[in-house]
Amino acid sequence: IKTSALSAGAVDRGAYRHFMQKEIFEQPYAVSETLEGRVVADRPLAAEILGSDAAAVLASTRAVQIVACGTSYHAGLIARYWLEELAGIPCQVEVASEYRYRHHVVLPDSLFLTLSQSGETADTLAAVQASREDAYIARLAICNVPESSLVRESELVLLTHAGPEIGVASTKAFTTQLVALMQVVLLVAQKRGADESVLKNLRGELLHLPQIIERALELDPLIERLAERFVDRGHALFLGRGAYYPVAMEGALKLKEISYIHAEAYPAGELKHGPLALVDADMPVIAVAPNNAMLEKLKSNLEEVRARGGELFVFAEPGAGLCEGPGMNIIEMPSGAGMSAPVVFTVPLQLLAYHTAVLKGTDVDQPRNLAKSVTVE
Amino acid sequence: IKTSALSAGAVDRGAYRHFMQKEIFEQPYAVSETLEGRVVADRPLAAEILGSDAAAVLASTRAVQIVACGTSYHAGLIARYWLEELAGIPCQVEVASEYRYRHHVVLPDSLFLTLSQSGETADTLAAVQASREDAYIARLAICNVPESSLVRESELVLLTHAGPEIGVASTKAFTTQLVALMQVVLLVAQKRGADESVLKNLRGELLHLPQIIERALELDPLIERLAERFVDRGHALFLGRGAYYPVAMEGALKLKEISYIHAEAYPAGELKHGPLALVDADMPVIAVAPNNAMLEKLKSNLEEVRARGGELFVFAEPGAGLCEGPGMNIIEMPSGAGMSAPVVFTVPLQLLAYHTAVLKGTDVDQPRNLAKSVTVE
Repeated sequence: IKTSALSAGAVDRGAYRHFMQKEIFEQPYAVSETLEGRVVADRPLAAEILGSDAAAVLASTRAVQIVACGTSYHAGLIARYWLEELAGIPCQVEVASEYRYRHHVVLPDSLFLTLSQSGETADTLAAVQASREDAYIARLAICNVPESSLVRESELVLLTHAGPEIGVASTKAFTTQLVALMQVVLLVAQKRGADESVLKNLRGELLHLPQIIERALELDPLIERLAERFVDRGHALFLGRGAYYPVAMEGALKLKEISYIHAEAYPAGELKHGPLALVDADMPVIAVAPNNAMLEKLKSNLEEVRARGGELFVFAEPGAGLCEGPGMNIIEMPSGAGMSAPVVFTVPLQLLAYHTAVLKGTDVDQPRNLAKSVTVE
Repeated sequence: IKTSALSAGAVDRGAYRHFMQKEIFEQPYAVSETLEGRVVADRPLAAEILGSDAAAVLASTRAVQIVACGTSYHAGLIARYWLEELAGIPCQVEVASEYRYRHHVVLPDSLFLTLSQSGETADTLAAVQASREDAYIARLAICNVPESSLVRESELVLLTHAGPEIGVASTKAFTTQLVALMQVVLLVAQKRGADESVLKNLRGELLHLPQIIERALELDPLIERLAERFVDRGHALFLGRGAYYPVAMEGALKLKEISYIHAEAYPAGELKHGPLALVDADMPVIAVAPNNAMLEKLKSNLEEVRARGGELFVFAEPGAGLCEGPGMNIIEMPSGAGMSAPVVFTVPLQLLAYHTAVLKGTDVDQPRNLAKSVTVE
């Protein structure tokens, strides 16, 4: 294992209290760096951003298998919604420690896509090595460390340019993974003949992300105040639908990791199948509510929560038609990111976990029991 | 919607304190009824158990899409492990409220398989109706109510013969779904040319299930005592690997539904990627540990929990090499169910939820906020 030049001790916190806080605020820059030289408004993406042999691989890709762990797994889950909708090819996503030990079936002409910040995650790395025994057409790694084992083991690579991430709870590595994943989705969709006007629109949304993330970061003082309502809670429920269900999962994981609050995410439509029994006045419920086709369905799910005495914190875009009131807190999100909005909605959830942990006085950058890179099984 | 003759008020609790308890103890009989006339040791299964046109459908099935909600979704997740291993064809499983609203891709020659106890679950029913617009070769319903909408909407049907289930938290409907799913897996595996000696062995294990479940039910007094250790807890973590991860999910859901304890399941290999931060002396951790190829991996995951002060409750088969001790409680499970053992390991988790809820004094059969069948979105 080589140590990356990026993760050296040269990094300092600057004016920030914790590395995690610094890394949350670096996201506009990190996203911008991950777009730089790859995405422009008026031209399709070049296959070569994945490597010199990428055009042939993309031309024959008919399915994608994503394998990752933890936060990276959540990024993969979001990409599945994007890929099946935009490129129309099947995508499966699985936790590396499950995938590698079960008798899985590989679809014809499948690309094997892995995600890892460090590129040294033991289960992910082992899955890549084992994938050579399957009939995958190629391995593509999305990774933050160019010198990593994962990058060396993969024929195709798309680096995230997040810069060094020191906080154990991943933030900018996750959002830059999403930006890289959208680039892969665009490349596959181009090859599959997706409508150029749709793709152009998506490129425009990607290019606006740094600016929209800046606006999401302006919610910081508001979220710092909201965090006071979480510091004494033992639990939280995070809800989302569609591509925002994995955003809810990621929000719950952040809160778990650094504040030790037992947070759990559910696809909102599953509430009535069990978790609603947990909801009472002691259970804060956080919902991710973009203005999309699922908004009305989500609102009816939220009404069920409210009717049971649960306190709601809803991250919503303007025009969602949700009103502040007893038990209903609305945090207005910047809009304009379109299909890339899962990146934007992740940011306030990171801030919520961060401020809650600071108020609780936990070790934000080095939470108990966890290591930055899980390099053993 | 027609009311089933099965779910009439004619049913009584007999000598049992709650319907849920009665239904847990009826499982040997319910499983036996669901095997009756379908599975015999010395002969392959007849395609006609799914309906008169089933042979042609099974012969052309090259992939399976499973869609369900809640407990039924967990049954589907277990079947995925079985199907990909035994029949070697791809299987995807998705929550109905997610599946029906996203742009999903249908694999060629796919069978659409739904699971619902009542056959009236709104999202599952809507997904079946919408599936006619996709290129599925046929719809197969696994259902407990012959007169249900789901059965009417599906060309192929395999009824579970669980008898009426009154308790809101599903028990015998789940285990009989698993038994029905294994029958479907065997049918597909037969058509795909699986080794008859392997299949014969699996049929033998299925036929022994009622007897092995009886032995699992003998754990009842032991689990009743263990439940005293859960009644004051706010949380619990359930761990499993492979097909026992969904068993852990089902165990966590039962505890949530009727005892209102915030229980969450994780695939054990994901522990280090976040949830381990939650583990301290206040977090009981329940693990499902059959004697399979993953046992040593699981044991190393459990050591991590123990090293962080977590109290472990491990359901293990004889010979697992786990020793009782401080922070380590071993519940010895009956063995012999082979690949069907997820059915057996579910039983003590149902009992644990049941006794914990009784001790807490909740309304076991009618937990707050929940309905037996979710017939609206």
